[in-house]
Amino acid sequence: MDVTIADIERAQTRIKSHTHRTPLMTSRLINQLVGCELIFKAENLQKIGAFKARGACNALFSMDRTKLNRGVITHSSGNHGAALAWAAQLRQTQCTVVMPNNAPRAKKDAVANYAAEIVFCEPTMASREASVAALIAARGSVLVHPYDNNQIIAGQGTAALETLEQLDRPVDMLITPVGGGGLLSGSAIAIKESKNASDMLVLGAEPDAADDAWRGFKNGTRVTISNPKTIADGLRGTVGVRNFSIITQHVDDILLTSEERIIEAMRLLWTRLKMIIEPSAAVPLAAIMDQPEQFFGKRVAIILSGGNLDLDKLPW
Amino acid sequence: MDVTIADIERAQTRIKSHTHRTPLMTSRLINQLVGCELIFKAENLQKIGAFKARGACNALFSMDRTKLNRGVITHSSGNHGAALAWAAQLRQTQCTVVMPNNAPRAKKDAVANYAAEIVFCEPTMASREASVAALIAARGSVLVHPYDNNQIIAGQGTAALETLEQLDRPVDMLITPVGGGGLLSGSAIAIKESKNASDMLVLGAEPDAADDAWRGFKNGTRVTISNPKTIADGLRGTVGVRNFSIITQHVDDILLTSEERIIEAMRLLWTRLKMIIEPSAAVPLAAIMDQPEQFFGKRVAIILSGGNLDLDKLPW
Repeated sequence: MDVTIADIERAQTRIKSHTHRTPLMTSRLINQLVGCELIFKAENLQKIGAFKARGACNALFSMDRTKLNRGVITHSSGNHGAALAWAAQLRQTQCTVVMPNNAPRAKKDAVANYAAEIVFCEPTMASREASVAALIAARGSVLVHPYDNNQIIAGQGTAALETLEQLDRPVDMLITPVGGGGLLSGSAIAIKESKNASDMLVLGAEPDAADDAWRGFKNGTRVTISNPKTIADGLRGTVGVRNFSIITQHVDDILLTSEERIIEAMRLLWTRLKMIIEPSAAVPLAAIMDQPEQFFGKRVAIILSGGNLDLDKLPW
Repeated sequence: MDVTIADIERAQTRIKSHTHRTPLMTSRLINQLVGCELIFKAENLQKIGAFKARGACNALFSMDRTKLNRGVITHSSGNHGAALAWAAQLRQTQCTVVMPNNAPRAKKDAVANYAAEIVFCEPTMASREASVAALIAARGSVLVHPYDNNQIIAGQGTAALETLEQLDRPVDMLITPVGGGGLLSGSAIAIKESKNASDMLVLGAEPDAADDAWRGFKNGTRVTISNPKTIADGLRGTVGVRNFSIITQHVDDILLTSEERIIEAMRLLWTRLKMIIEPSAAVPLAAIMDQPEQFFGKRVAIILSGGNLDLDKLPW
């Protein structure tokens, strides 16, 4: 049961009244600096401050009441946890979030604010999954995986679908950050299966320090990593099985970039767009800044994935 | 020759193609915290990152070529300087900006980026005015005062006019920060002389530490201050003569607030709106947070005046 553009369109209808239609932003100065025309989809202004609201909302609004009544559970470095907690409040069900103990405070607070139960684990995928499995065995809660889940993928895909609707004229490519791959895989289906944009390129961008999607993409075999050290806390997860399959099928390339460049791009976006974005959201621009010659004269849409971070721990 | 709403409407037509129609933003969580409904006009997303682009653009696009050819000059703590430098580039004329030596680096850089000449002075109104007078005597440049100027007042008034157009239903009041009073006086004329909003209240908000507008308003006589110590660097100037006259005639009240509250409000806006705003822009929300009972259940529009500040010197 693969996700199709029809699933993404249904997700869009399902979540429309609960989520924001976030604006597209541009900066003449950033365009001058990089030599291409960038259009930023401001998902930092989305509900809970990240695109993750789309997937969680779609998952819980397509779940029947019997399942909902068992309560929902997930593991998340932060934004999916907050999104599921938020959506669970809308659907009046109980929510548990397993979080790595090194998640940013702002993300822990957000999950707590939506009245979810937080269970901390070690910052590895193995620890996350073991904690979730134990809780499911004990309680019977329903897992809503942060990315390896068809309803989540369809929900995240609505950000790209909406971007297509909002653009006044076509772009050459769309770039999204890639962590678990929910956003990238959903975006790829939304673009490649659309009537009008199927010749658009879809690219992922990933930190050097958490390059599992890139390595898997280049080798054709999914790679797992454990506890990667990157400032882009939203991209520390390993790309999911479903996500990897969609990415190898539909995505044109994956770009890598350094920690220093991510910080530089983040600061540039803060300064020029006057918007708070989290490090993960800066990764696509960072990748362009690393090799601008590849993008000269192109028109590029970028999804700014989120805006949740600790204002007391800025990287400059 | 008083400024009228017709001047503001003409300014709107004049500047429309050069400036942004900035969006209105809301936050359910901030509304819950303060107990009223706040609508923020995001002038931090305006050209040069502040509403000042409106006034400078109006002033230079209503100036004839003979005058423009003499070059323009101003004194400014930052945003008006950047705005005049930007507008001077559009009008292809030379621009000099006298800046206090304690202006934020980001604001100095902005003026320099628009190719204006910067002349530094001491951070007092006397020093600012003396430096400008000496340069005018030597060069014959045309002064474009940062606020005590009819075209500037009319230009700044377009932010309130545009807010009225964008609101889906009326608000009870509009609050703006007050420094020199350009924004507040222009806003007051735009609201009080409008057909549909003349019963709306117009309030100014000012730091305790730079309370010249408040003291003048309460006493009926304009007060000058020198080098006030407030984090709200955009509000350190003394309210202008024309501005004071308009404020006493049209403004309903001026509110005061503390430095601590300004920082708290600024951080709240960063966290919840995901937007970079400078300290001056947080002053109206800070004033509401000081006495929320006065605003319970009200619908309040606030102009977020700008978003230019040093990211290396955040107050937390």
